[in-house]
Amino acid sequence: MKPAIDTARDLMKKKKPNKSVLIKGIEQGDRFILSRAITLAESSKKSDRVLSQEVLKHFGDQGQSSVRIGITGVPGVGKSTFIEAFGELLADKGFKIAVLAVDPSSQVTKGSIMGDKTRMEKLANHPNAYVRPSASGSSMGGVARKTREAMLLCEAAGYEVIIVETVGVGQSETAVKDMVDFFLLLMLAGAGDELQGIKKGIMEMADCLAINKADGENKNAAERAKQEYSNALHYFRQEEFGWHCKVLTCSSISKKGLAPIWEAVEKFVEIRKTNGYFFENRKQQRLKWMHESIKAELLAKFYANESVRQISKEKESKVMQGELPAYFAANELIEVFEKDK
Amino acid sequence: MKPAIDTARDLMKKKKPNKSVLIKGIEQGDRFILSRAITLAESSKKSDRVLSQEVLKHFGDQGQSSVRIGITGVPGVGKSTFIEAFGELLADKGFKIAVLAVDPSSQVTKGSIMGDKTRMEKLANHPNAYVRPSASGSSMGGVARKTREAMLLCEAAGYEVIIVETVGVGQSETAVKDMVDFFLLLMLAGAGDELQGIKKGIMEMADCLAINKADGENKNAAERAKQEYSNALHYFRQEEFGWHCKVLTCSSISKKGLAPIWEAVEKFVEIRKTNGYFFENRKQQRLKWMHESIKAELLAKFYANESVRQISKEKESKVMQGELPAYFAANELIEVFEKDK
Repeated sequence: MKPAIDTARDLMKKKKPNKSVLIKGIEQGDRFILSRAITLAESSKKSDRVLSQEVLKHFGDQGQSSVRIGITGVPGVGKSTFIEAFGELLADKGFKIAVLAVDPSSQVTKGSIMGDKTRMEKLANHPNAYVRPSASGSSMGGVARKTREAMLLCEAAGYEVIIVETVGVGQSETAVKDMVDFFLLLMLAGAGDELQGIKKGIMEMADCLAINKADGENKNAAERAKQEYSNALHYFRQEEFGWHCKVLTCSSISKKGLAPIWEAVEKFVEIRKTNGYFFENRKQQRLKWMHESIKAELLAKFYANESVRQISKEKESKVMQGELPAYFAANELIEVFEKDK
Repeated sequence: MKPAIDTARDLMKKKKPNKSVLIKGIEQGDRFILSRAITLAESSKKSDRVLSQEVLKHFGDQGQSSVRIGITGVPGVGKSTFIEAFGELLADKGFKIAVLAVDPSSQVTKGSIMGDKTRMEKLANHPNAYVRPSASGSSMGGVARKTREAMLLCEAAGYEVIIVETVGVGQSETAVKDMVDFFLLLMLAGAGDELQGIKKGIMEMADCLAINKADGENKNAAERAKQEYSNALHYFRQEEFGWHCKVLTCSSISKKGLAPIWEAVEKFVEIRKTNGYFFENRKQQRLKWMHESIKAELLAKFYANESVRQISKEKESKVMQGELPAYFAANELIEVFEKDK
């Protein structure tokens, strides 16, 4: 252990870390300091956020050689077990792998995805892996920002495969899609016609569908489901930038089918880097993050305004009843907002 | 013809109409005055807009008995011919029907949907029908607002079935979905695997898919496509508030299959009114319009700000290259904006 890190750790315990300590620690891949930097990025204290922005600014977006993988699926599909098995496969291959989560439900339940501290224990103890509990926050946008920044910090610390987990319940999928290169949807065979609660649109975001729990008695059903989803995709999806959504089966228990998923990721990255879309997509994602941040900040200031708050319920109710035109009410609220500033 | 309207028409020719003339004319279903009121709502002059907002405020959202139908499909699918045939069927049944359009492409081409003045001539001359050319505007949000307001004005003038047409090319579908009760997607048989250019997600918004041009040699292919889409939907869509997306075939030439589409609309409305979702959805749509209007207005003010404009290109470029964190750049721009005001 280098002295710089010892000093850094000592400092951490006593007082607020400074920029250079954080940067040095991250550069050296120190997990403790990485965790502290992520905690600062997640903090609601402005001074913490300013510091973490300075650190982020120092590193920029370094993920030239990283792969960012989003993973979703409804509760019960076996996401944790899959990620643990898949993560171990990669960590054993020598990849440095970080697992993050975008979990809107954790705002309410305080951590439905990552709250269980015993979760992914084996992976978390692997020398090549870093598992971070889910960030919480008052808004989806806030949670997404924290996860994106955690991802950049992990990459700055040398992590090469970033897995971002989320639940298949809505807007969190869009947020994750906007921060990853490859989006994997886990599904189950024989879960009936109800699409297993997967929200409209999520299946259309996926770069790969994997029918999980393809083991034991379930194996044949999984193969059938694979065939049926392949047929359906034929109608619903087209090739996008050289890649057509793949359908695979896998089992986190027998470990079968995990390697082919990683091969799909590698093939995907190769194709998209060759045709230039891989880095173009990242550029567009960054630009979108900036504009999304601006929008979120402007709206937050508007809806937090006291004068707006005082009359907005009444306006909303009149608009819903059809008594006040939507645009009319919007302008009244904006006038009130601008007078108050 | 009642004297009030004569006076109104005289006034129209000479000078700016006033509120009471507009209201009286709309109440009496005068198409000329309805058109003038819509033109005011579409105007970029603030005084025109204020006047039209007063008129809209007078009427509120009256469409308790109306049905709002969105229709989309790629160019070449036969939208105009379909709407003309479908509209005539309804107008002949005695329904008062209005046809509007949300057409983002008209911003560039000055009217790819409704620009052709000979379009829907027969329907436009039907005593029960009103066909309005596409609104234009500098933004999708602006075009959508104008169409929504035109819809409310048509309903105030007694129109019972509002058809909102759009092209299958992206965000305009979302805007239309947010203003209609029922969304119909027109498709063609045998157009290959490429989903006929229909954007991801549009098929998932539809309440009904109709395979158009199911006539002559095309008839069998249309029936096959119907079966295949039904099978695929089985995997991709679930029942929503009592309704499962229907797949039908139709021909605007032989007029076959048009009545079943109307029956589907009627059945849909009956189910959704019985379970309460019909009007609940409209309430939520109105609320969404209000918040969308607020967002659009706040963002428009931000991006039009001179200080923001001066530095935004440079910030965007740095963010895209990964040199500046997105959130950091967003905050710099917001600071500049707030200082300038």
